[in-house]
Amino acid sequence: MLSRMTLEQFAEALAAATPTPGGGSASAQAGAMAASLIQMMCDLTLGREQYRSQEAAVQGIRHRVEGLRKDLLALVDRDAQAYDAVVTALRLPKTTDSEREARSAALDRANLFAIEAPMAIADACAALMSMASDLASGGNVNAVSDVGTAALLAYAGLRGAVLSVRANLKGVKDEARGAKIRDRVRRLEMDAEKLREEALTVIYVRTNGR
Amino acid sequence: MLSRMTLEQFAEALAAATPTPGGGSASAQAGAMAASLIQMMCDLTLGREQYRSQEAAVQGIRHRVEGLRKDLLALVDRDAQAYDAVVTALRLPKTTDSEREARSAALDRANLFAIEAPMAIADACAALMSMASDLASGGNVNAVSDVGTAALLAYAGLRGAVLSVRANLKGVKDEARGAKIRDRVRRLEMDAEKLREEALTVIYVRTNGR
Repeated sequence: MLSRMTLEQFAEALAAATPTPGGGSASAQAGAMAASLIQMMCDLTLGREQYRSQEAAVQGIRHRVEGLRKDLLALVDRDAQAYDAVVTALRLPKTTDSEREARSAALDRANLFAIEAPMAIADACAALMSMASDLASGGNVNAVSDVGTAALLAYAGLRGAVLSVRANLKGVKDEARGAKIRDRVRRLEMDAEKLREEALTVIYVRTNGR
Repeated sequence: MLSRMTLEQFAEALAAATPTPGGGSASAQAGAMAASLIQMMCDLTLGREQYRSQEAAVQGIRHRVEGLRKDLLALVDRDAQAYDAVVTALRLPKTTDSEREARSAALDRANLFAIEAPMAIADACAALMSMASDLASGGNVNAVSDVGTAALLAYAGLRGAVLSVRANLKGVKDEARGAKIRDRVRRLEMDAEKLREEALTVIYVRTNGR
């Protein structure tokens, strides 16, 4: 399991010129780190008198973020497994007509499955970006640089996962479905762009532009 | 050592409401993953007939990127150690005048030291962004989504490290030095903004906007 590797081993595995792990798994790990930093920010904010007005909102984030971290760590592995299935389908025999047909159907199924993992990574990172943005304005001022880093990591995770979605879409034959997915990831990208700079601007202002 | 932790353990350590590890270490890990994906792209490009014109440029990147990965993994730990020294200085006694003076001098030294680690992370990530940008246009087209993810991770690592630099600058008394550092990180941020979108646009074009 990739999530049981050390940081050093995972970096080695990513660097290897093998199909997996690749950008999707790295994006999931970036998202998991974002979730961790958001959890830290929640725990540095909750129960403090000066942030009392934020208590309910931060509790809401705290309840969801630990689950997102676990989901994203699981997606480090799931993304690699899904792409391995694409590679397996690519290696199916294609000598006879019936072999070619079977291979093409297997590849189509594998590619659709290989889109689900990065799509789940992108959705989780989108949720994290909105949490980071809320905490940038309402969280403990002493940890805003950490929550800004969380926004950046979730942003990189989201856009990296979208690159994987698009790369796997080339193998999907259903054009209507493809167009729908392309539209959905484009909206995620545009929201991410906006949330990232909003969060960083709020942090800049709260720290007096230092 | 943080870099000997598993991905799961590192995520737990980041999530803990303790001063370290924090955003600086997470930024270094994002940079290390970017370096890994760039190394993979190099090895999928070198020695292939259709990318022969890129051979020398990619060899140049390949020679530097493995060192950057190791540097960034070391910086995951070094950033945490440097910030621990700030926390230690903050806890020095401040009852008498001479204690206050000694504490203030120790804190100033610790903060300057705590700026060096994220500055090194930002510089390494800036070098990685320029490599990712070159490989987005000249590298193996089958791995461009991975190198796009590398550009995004290096971008997040760079801007996350800059947030740490700025956070630690508040404890530095030498204003001229502070202004110089602020100017330097602002330039790094502006270049990163440009390189990120340039790389992603080239990738979009090379993959026919899929």
